[in-house]
This record gives sequence, C-alpha cells and structure tokens, in this order.
Amino acid sequence: MPSRMRHEIGEQPEALRRTIGSLLPRIGELEKLAAGARQVLFVARGSSDNAAVYGRYLVESRTGRLASLAAPSVATTYRSRIDLDGVLAVAISQSGRTEEIVETMAWARDCGARTVAVTNGHGSPLAEAADVALLTEAGEELAVPATKTYTTQLAALAVLGAGLGADVDTADLARVPDEIERLIEATEAAEELPLIVAELARVQGVVVSARGLAFGTALELALKLKEACYLHAMGLSYADLLHGPIAVVDERTPAIVLGAAGSPVLAGTAALAARVTEAGARAYGIGGGPALAGSSSLALPGPALPEWTAPLGLIVPGQLVVERLARALGINPDVPRGLNKVTQTGV
Amino acid sequence: MPSRMRHEIGEQPEALRRTIGSLLPRIGELEKLAAGARQVLFVARGSSDNAAVYGRYLVESRTGRLASLAAPSVATTYRSRIDLDGVLAVAISQSGRTEEIVETMAWARDCGARTVAVTNGHGSPLAEAADVALLTEAGEELAVPATKTYTTQLAALAVLGAGLGADVDTADLARVPDEIERLIEATEAAEELPLIVAELARVQGVVVSARGLAFGTALELALKLKEACYLHAMGLSYADLLHGPIAVVDERTPAIVLGAAGSPVLAGTAALAARVTEAGARAYGIGGGPALAGSSSLALPGPALPEWTAPLGLIVPGQLVVERLARALGINPDVPRGLNKVTQTGV
Repeated sequence: MPSRMRHEIGEQPEALRRTIGSLLPRIGELEKLAAGARQVLFVARGSSDNAAVYGRYLVESRTGRLASLAAPSVATTYRSRIDLDGVLAVAISQSGRTEEIVETMAWARDCGARTVAVTNGHGSPLAEAADVALLTEAGEELAVPATKTYTTQLAALAVLGAGLGADVDTADLARVPDEIERLIEATEAAEELPLIVAELARVQGVVVSARGLAFGTALELALKLKEACYLHAMGLSYADLLHGPIAVVDERTPAIVLGAAGSPVLAGTAALAARVTEAGARAYGIGGGPALAGSSSLALPGPALPEWTAPLGLIVPGQLVVERLARALGINPDVPRGLNKVTQTGV
Repeated sequence: MPSRMRHEIGEQPEALRRTIGSLLPRIGELEKLAAGARQVLFVARGSSDNAAVYGRYLVESRTGRLASLAAPSVATTYRSRIDLDGVLAVAISQSGRTEEIVETMAWARDCGARTVAVTNGHGSPLAEAADVALLTEAGEELAVPATKTYTTQLAALAVLGAGLGADVDTADLARVPDEIERLIEATEAAEELPLIVAELARVQGVVVSARGLAFGTALELALKLKEACYLHAMGLSYADLLHGPIAVVDERTPAIVLGAAGSPVLAGTAALAARVTEAGARAYGIGGGPALAGSSSLALPGPALPEWTAPLGLIVPGQLVVERLARALGINPDVPRGLNKVTQTGV
C-alpha cells in the first residue's frame, strides 16, 4: 500500500494550483504593506524555517531589502525588547498553532513590526492575529513529514516576494503545478532513483548541499532524511561545506547536491559535486541540468523553472527519495518515531 | 608528542588576557559607532560564523537591537544592492584574508553600512578596510582547527556588545582567562573525559545541541567534530531538534548537550538531555551545573562564568574532547584531510 506521504507528494500540483490561484490576486494588498517595510524578519521552525530560508534569499536577491530569520528564544525566553519599527515580520507555521511561533509573532508586533502569517491553519491563532494572513490551500496533511504544506508555503512566499517588488514575472508561478506533475513522473521513471535509494540505504550519514535560492531546499531535504529515515543528514551551503566540513565526505558519507538550472551559483555547485567524487565519495545530483548531472555519480532531474520558482519543484525528487528510502529501511514514513504533527518546542 | 591543537588550547588563557586587555579600553570608540547603529549584520564563515551566532544572541538579548548573519552569496554572486543605512556590519575572519568575507564587507559599506572587522590578521585586507578593526591577540595559530582564534573572537564580540550598550558588567571579562585555565585542568582530571571519548570513538554520528547564548558553542563543537574527527555531527538548537530531528537520536547516535549555569534556557536544555536518555540514547552534558549533569549519562564541567561570558569557556571541554577523539581515531588533529588554514570558498 502506498504511504500517505507518497499520496500527499502527488497532491502537490493541485494544492499549488489552489494556493497560487488564491494568493496571486492579493499582490496589491501586499504592495501596500511593502511601502513601510524596510526589511523582513521570518519567524518559523522546522520545515517552515527551511521555507523561510527560501523567502530570505528571494527578498534579499530580488527586492533590495535585508531579510533574516528570528531567534524565537530572544522573544520567548530572554524576553528582550527590540526595536522593530519598519520591519515586516513573516511568521510561517503549517498548523498556525505552534505556541512559540504565535508568541514570537505577538512579540514582534509589540516591538513595532507589521505582521504576515503564512499558514495552512485556516482560522488558527496565527492567522487570526496577523495583519495579513496568507493561507495556503494544501488541505489536510496526515503524514508527519511535511510535503504539500511546505511547497505551498514556498508558493505563498513567492507571492510575498512579488508583492515586495521582486523583479520577477508572476506568470512563472502558474507553470509550477504542471511542471511538478511532470517532474514526479520523470523522477519515478528515472532508473537512477532506485539506485540512489539502494546506495543511501547502506550509509548512516549524508551531506546535503546547495547555495543561494536553493539552499533552503538542501536544509529541507536534510531535515526529511533525519526525521523520516533517521539518517545523519547534514545540510550545509556549499561555501560552508568547503570551509571545513568537506573533511567529513568520504566513501561512507556521500553528498546530495542540489541546484537550479540557470542559477549564477550553479557553476560552484557543479564544482562541488566534482570535488566530492574526486575525493572518492559519491555525489548525487538533483536538478541543475547537464552541468550538475555531468559532475555527479548519479543524478535525478530537476524542474524546468526559472531560478526564483525552482525551489517549489526542486524538493520533489528529494521527497520521493525520502519516501522510498524510509520504506527500504523498514520505517513507516507517515509516522516516524518521536514526532507529532503540531510541534511544541517550549520548556 | 602532544598535538599543536592541544598546545593552542592551552594558550587560550594567555591569548584572552592579551585580547581583553587590548580591546576593553576601546569601548568608548565602539560607543560612538553604536550611536548610529540601528542593527548589526555579521559577515563570517566557519568557526567565525559560529562566533557570530554568539554575537547575534548577545546583541539581541542585551542591547535591544536586531542582529543577523549575512548570506555572502547575496553580495558576491547575486550582486544584489540592499539598503544598509543604519546597519553596523561586523566582519569576522581569523586570517582577515578570506576573499568572500573581504568582498562582502566592502559590499556592505557600498550599501551604506558602517563596518567593524574582528580578525587575528593584523595588517590584513579586512583590518585595513574596516572603519574600526578589533584585532584579536591570539598569536599565530598552526593547527587547522581554530581554538584560540575562536575564543578571542568571542572576547572581541563581548567587548563589542558592551560597546553597543549591553547591560553587562565588563569586569566579568577579566575573570575569563583564569577560569579557562582552571577548566582545562578540571576537564583533563575528570574521569568522564576518557569515557566520553571512548564512547564517541564507537559511533559515526552525534547531535550537538544548546540554545540561546550557548547555541553558537554547539555549532562550533559540531563543526570541529566534523572537520577533525570526520564524525557526522549535527548542530541544532534544542528547539529545532525537538521539532523533528529528535527522531535521529538513538542507541547509535548520542547527543552532546551544552548549557550555561544560571541561563534562562537551562531548564529546557536539561529536559532535552533527559528526553534523550529516556529514548535509550546517550546524552553527554557539558556545563550547566548539577541541573544538566544530573540528567546526562556522563558530564563534563563548564565554566563558572555568568551566561554572557560563559561561551568563551564552554567550548573548551569540547575542544579537549575533539583533540583526544581525533587521536583515538588515528587522525592528526592538526592537519585534517582536505583543509587549509586560509579558506577560499568561491567558485
């Protein structure tokens, strides 16, 4: 029987169609918010945090604004008061009910920020408390590992970026659902998929690397490999990796390297894959076209999308790897040990 | 023959005495910079990045200013222009010669930021180009894994925090060198040290966790375990860990949990250690006094320092674990594979 996770991976095109259709008309509303927003502060945890990393690079590389990720403990434990005048706080939470995130968004507002909620929790405390709520239309997600709630968060952040004045063509967004449909088929038809899964089933650890707009995808894939496959997965930007942790890559520790075709960071990403294989380790490429595939040991296709929307599709082959790998390891990917769907991280 | 790394660990008290003695008198100069600094943007990689995480929590929790870490690729590859008026850019680099960091600091200045360099590279391009250079007095560091250059960076950031108006007593800094001297002796005398090293020598992966002001220490210890022991070391805040990756902790994957005695995040840190042992995994505590030691499988002492200076000492037991573990694994900790002292991370 296919897992719920695999089923929900397949629901992504439709979930994205609904979400994009519902949020694109709200760009005008976001443009009004943007007028007073000098910079963006994302508030999130887990997969939502990885979505925030995409949002951060999108805002910084395309809108001329500084963007960063909040440290919730500064708000909830140290109870520091920080001047957030001119800051747009964007809180991201699948459920909209994680107390720490709700509390940190309230703190940001008290400190002077305007607030946006990105959540699948229609009517949730987070959605209710925000100045603007961008609701994702993923429908109910039952598997613990986030898939469609993650990619629809990316879609909401892409719309937010456009509202903040990113120099992008929003028509690119409409192409995403069909492209993910094609990519799921292409990945499952690829003879490399079972080979990569079989090789990963024989190791305990893996490095997952990318840079720039695709970096959040590497972090998200590393998180999934930890939580659903219990792999020692280390997500690192390729620059951080070369700065020291490259020492960890060896015949027992392969690297998964992700890239978006046409990205200015792709040359470095392909060079990293080449360096990994030269060191005698295996490199699995995802996306990045012939440049990355050519320097990888084995490669999976990526989405044919421009760099700014590529992360919405780039995670999909990784999701399929995780789902198959979990089952190959005898783990039910829908219910990994130790996890709940609504996470509370307080003391 | 003892390694250079062990020798340089022992040089830290003297290096810190010199650095603190040289930088404390410059607080007045930093106070002038602070007047126009709405927020702080750190620019760093590797160990310096982990030092920046300490700086970030210090600035946010004690000075009422937002602080964040720059994404260098936004400057060097995407070549985005961001409004940094009112931002204090603090570039941290041991050598002061890593091109990416020099280039990103220059970019920040072009975008309107004031600049501070924290570096051991006296006369380096980074020191020369900054508005204010805070030179660390670590002396030459020969082992590839940073020890004394890292803790003296922390000292410089502590002085910077005080200059930015942190509600701290700078007299606490003067106590740090003696306390580290005592801590090195206490750690090497602890019967737990060889036990922890022997247990870590039998695993491939480990989670390293802390929160708040001690979080950077967890990231730094994880980095050292990767680069000098080739361990699959995953550095995570305890909140992120509980949000999903806790699934990875099991009988083959222990956790190292760090805390500062007297910290408001200590209760949560001790609860995490308890949760790890309840899951059947080993938890090694470092610091945090009886609260953390009592919920850990084995524990090493931490520094008797207030939370804001504790990270200067908290890494030291971890450095000693790394040095011994590397040798136990047959690795020369001074020259791990694949690494150079001055790192270039470009394409």
